[in-house]
Amino acid sequence: MIKEGDFIFLYGGKKAQFLIKYSKEKPYFECHLGKVEFPDGFDFGDVLYTNKNKPLFVLRPTTSDLVFRVKRLTTIMYPKDMGYVVLNLGIKSGDRVLEVGSGSGAMTIVLAGLVGDNGMVYSFERREEFLKNASYNVKRAGLSGRVKFFLRDVEKEGFGVFDVDAAVVDVPEPWSLVRHVKESLKGGAPVFFLSPNIEQVQKTYESLKEHGFVRMKTVEILEREIKVREGKTRPMERMISHTGYLTFAHKVNDGKEEKTYED
Amino acid sequence: MIKEGDFIFLYGGKKAQFLIKYSKEKPYFECHLGKVEFPDGFDFGDVLYTNKNKPLFVLRPTTSDLVFRVKRLTTIMYPKDMGYVVLNLGIKSGDRVLEVGSGSGAMTIVLAGLVGDNGMVYSFERREEFLKNASYNVKRAGLSGRVKFFLRDVEKEGFGVFDVDAAVVDVPEPWSLVRHVKESLKGGAPVFFLSPNIEQVQKTYESLKEHGFVRMKTVEILEREIKVREGKTRPMERMISHTGYLTFAHKVNDGKEEKTYED
Amino acid sequence: MIKEGDFIFLYGGKKAQFLIKYSKEKPYFECHLGKVEFPDGFDFGDVLYTNKNKPLFVLRPTTSDLVFRVKRLTTIMYPKDMGYVVLNLGIKSGDRVLEVGSGSGAMTIVLAGLVGDNGMVYSFERREEFLKNASYNVKRAGLSGRVKFFLRDVEKEGFGVFDVDAAVVDVPEPWSLVRHVKESLKGGAPVFFLSPNIEQVQKTYESLKEHGFVRMKTVEILEREIKVREGKTRPMERMISHTGYLTFAHKVNDGKEEKTYED
Amino acid sequence: MIKEGDFIFLYGGKKAQFLIKYSKEKPYFECHLGKVEFPDGFDFGDVLYTNKNKPLFVLRPTTSDLVFRVKRLTTIMYPKDMGYVVLNLGIKSGDRVLEVGSGSGAMTIVLAGLVGDNGMVYSFERREEFLKNASYNVKRAGLSGRVKFFLRDVEKEGFGVFDVDAAVVDVPEPWSLVRHVKESLKGGAPVFFLSPNIEQVQKTYESLKEHGFVRMKTVEILEREIKVREGKTRPMERMISHTGYLTFAHKVNDGKEEKTYED
Repeated sequence: MIKEGDFIFLYGGKKAQFLIKYSKEKPYFECHLGKVEFPDGFDFGDVLYTNKNKPLFVLRPTTSDLVFRVKRLTTIMYPKDMGYVVLNLGIKSGDRVLEVGSGSGAMTIVLAGLVGDNGMVYSFERREEFLKNASYNVKRAGLSGRVKFFLRDVEKEGFGVFDVDAAVVDVPEPWSLVRHVKESLKGGAPVFFLSPNIEQVQKTYESLKEHGFVRMKTVEILEREIKVREGKTRPMERMISHTGYLTFAHKVNDGKEEKTYED
Repeated sequence: MIKEGDFIFLYGGKKAQFLIKYSKEKPYFECHLGKVEFPDGFDFGDVLYTNKNKPLFVLRPTTSDLVFRVKRLTTIMYPKDMGYVVLNLGIKSGDRVLEVGSGSGAMTIVLAGLVGDNGMVYSFERREEFLKNASYNVKRAGLSGRVKFFLRDVEKEGFGVFDVDAAVVDVPEPWSLVRHVKESLKGGAPVFFLSPNIEQVQKTYESLKEHGFVRMKTVEILEREIKVREGKTRPMERMISHTGYLTFAHKVNDGKEEKTYED
Repeated sequence: MIKEGDFIFLYGGKKAQFLIKYSKEKPYFECHLGKVEFPDGFDFGDVLYTNKNKPLFVLRPTTSDLVFRVKRLTTIMYPKDMGYVVLNLGIKSGDRVLEVGSGSGAMTIVLAGLVGDNGMVYSFERREEFLKNASYNVKRAGLSGRVKFFLRDVEKEGFGVFDVDAAVVDVPEPWSLVRHVKESLKGGAPVFFLSPNIEQVQKTYESLKEHGFVRMKTVEILEREIKVREGKTRPMERMISHTGYLTFAHKVNDGKEEKTYED
Repeated sequence: MIKEGDFIFLYGGKKAQFLIKYSKEKPYFECHLGKVEFPDGFDFGDVLYTNKNKPLFVLRPTTSDLVFRVKRLTTIMYPKDMGYVVLNLGIKSGDRVLEVGSGSGAMTIVLAGLVGDNGMVYSFERREEFLKNASYNVKRAGLSGRVKFFLRDVEKEGFGVFDVDAAVVDVPEPWSLVRHVKESLKGGAPVFFLSPNIEQVQKTYESLKEHGFVRMKTVEILEREIKVREGKTRPMERMISHTGYLTFAHKVNDGKEEKTYED
């Protein structure tokens, strides 16, 4: 049975997809398909009919649904990219994760969901309005207890957070922060950078090399949707062809020796 | 400090990447770069030198590293696909997940890592050798407590597991199991199918429609690596261009009414 | 010097691209950038200024420009696909080519341009309005002498054209025409089919096999544009992700023997 | 009937594809499928049987077949790219085309095939061994009359060829030649550059801007093959993911005025 504060995903077809937070104070929903009343004891998997007799299916929202529908003040990372990042950083229950650039809090929500109650996300943002909005979105998702937000110009002050298991960096000029990220990371731990432009990737590599990081890897992730219809199966005619370059690297502890290897 | 049983990712360049499980009984490692001894108290982020004076970096393995290096008796799902699946199923700490087709246990490990100690993965396999191997891989990853394996021909018997939050189906003829998957899923919950061939997707859609599932979506995920070298930055010359079609749908509870909507 | 009837490509930036046919009767051009007069003796490569002081460059149109800007009553094949088709059919000066489905005449123009004055394109269309429009476009491009149009329901009557060097088939149900195409083709010669949907490709294969064609190959061609800007180089954010499947095959002469080979 | 000197494409399945030049002096062919004798009066479209009773189909080679099978001393441009280039340069019968970097002569053959007997390709190469090989390949294709080769270090001397309709530039450092290419091109005419690396594209843009070229465009062309088998239709598992960036621009005549426009 659906409870106060549950997220509900109402689905009435490709062009009728809505994420709402259920509240008894407003036991109805309206859209272009009409108005629907939420009956007592309605549950996930039920189908409701609008006053125009259109069905709305009451579905459980996925993580993609939650992050796509945060209140946005910035562009957000796409689920196709987030999933890849999470697996290539090895995020798991109990981890402590550094996030540089809270943005709209979309990635913050994903990270907080995965680290669980024993983990923690340290999220840094230097624009106050973004931080407030990210914080609002995280709170709405019921994950405030797993996130500490910091309003800070990190380049000057550093993070003041140490021994993190992984770091997610989504800021326009990450190269100036690589030394701080290195201080915060555990030895051998991975860091991720999102960069829309190739020149950002190139500068990030320079900084990573300078600070002794290894195992650099950069990929793009493309999502191509297939329309499956009887006798008319084909890829969709248009797609998002670029969101950003995803760059990964691992921290190496400082030592006296010169390190060289071939890639 | 690295402890008995820890996974270590040894990195000596693109062509020298090794996942090992550390044991004091075998405090050394050998590869084409030479032999390296593990000194007392060595730690993640350290660099070790082989007897040929080649560096091997001691890195923390990511989830991708762990799943790519399971002992394989079957093809495994790629991390690029797994990440997308996890976010589009909304897998989170505490979830109970149904897995149909244990395969080599790669996806089982990812799921078990994410559901945490309060969750559970119910993994069904009908070939005994696969089940044994998957079980071995899960145990080696230290996740046995979060997975229940079943050796069963599901088509006849069903799963006998109910109210799961999500289902992952990776078998050649999933359409014959859709009714059982429906029984097991919570109302409104999502299911995922991996299908190498488009005809499998088409048949799965037929079965999903027949059983009242909604919000079907099929995508391909492509990973394109970029070589970032000074003055020589470009995409890699070759890539994996197809692993499988990823299909998603949500369960709708049975009712008397006819449900129709436009997609 | 630009002559009466020359095609001119006026370029004033990404959002100001125009193909016109020059005529002394209308020695000016107007668009959102303003009005420009064509001075006597102006030539390709010149820059003209509008009354709003915006430059318009007088460029030579490419084949892509010509085909993208035909008067369209149908979808047209994309230049990315056309170029691939032309090379994989081996179209060359002097060839006689069969076209099934004139559409808007875009491919007709490309073919006519390549076969030269010694070649010929035989273009069949069964909808009169399409044929008229295609014929108009071909005439406007000054290529009428190289194209013979036929208004015909081919399935019943066949083509009545023989020994063609190659065939281009762009109709919704090509499988019913394969036997006629075979009659028209030279031995060993290639044929091409454009199919938006995978089921069309599958049915075409069945028919091709039945009629003894060999060397079947199906590809998709994807064009990804790169934005090259100082410090901001990256792929465009959106792209056309599907236009159609391109299928090729070669005719084998009929014989008594059973032919089998492994692909 | 097949004549002395004809190119024949022998096809015995995906792994048995051969381009040969027929000569009565050697009326047989051998490969892993066995030996086949060419009977008197055999023709395109026939099927021949080897002494191991395997069929070899006698097909007409396409342009792709011809260029893929030149004797190579260099990497060659791919047909997927060549087709796009040809349409975006607007190459047609009668054109005079400048080629900078003959390479192995593959693109030379395509261009010579299209310009016909009234056109001409001017092909420049600075390494003698490449030029000899390219010349051999062009002669073998029967196209020598349409190509003039020049062994020259162009940067110092320029081309000495003027009023060309289009230019194809495939050398590692094209930016140093842009001024010479400009001298050779007709006003408003297009030029194409092939660049494996993004930095080459960036430097080429700088040079193009400096010399007043407009309408710059850069694309990648991806070819994805689909395996069409009954019940097993899917994209091929691996593909070529990068051959090069294709850059296009148009020449503007020099003038006194400053030209600025927004892209």
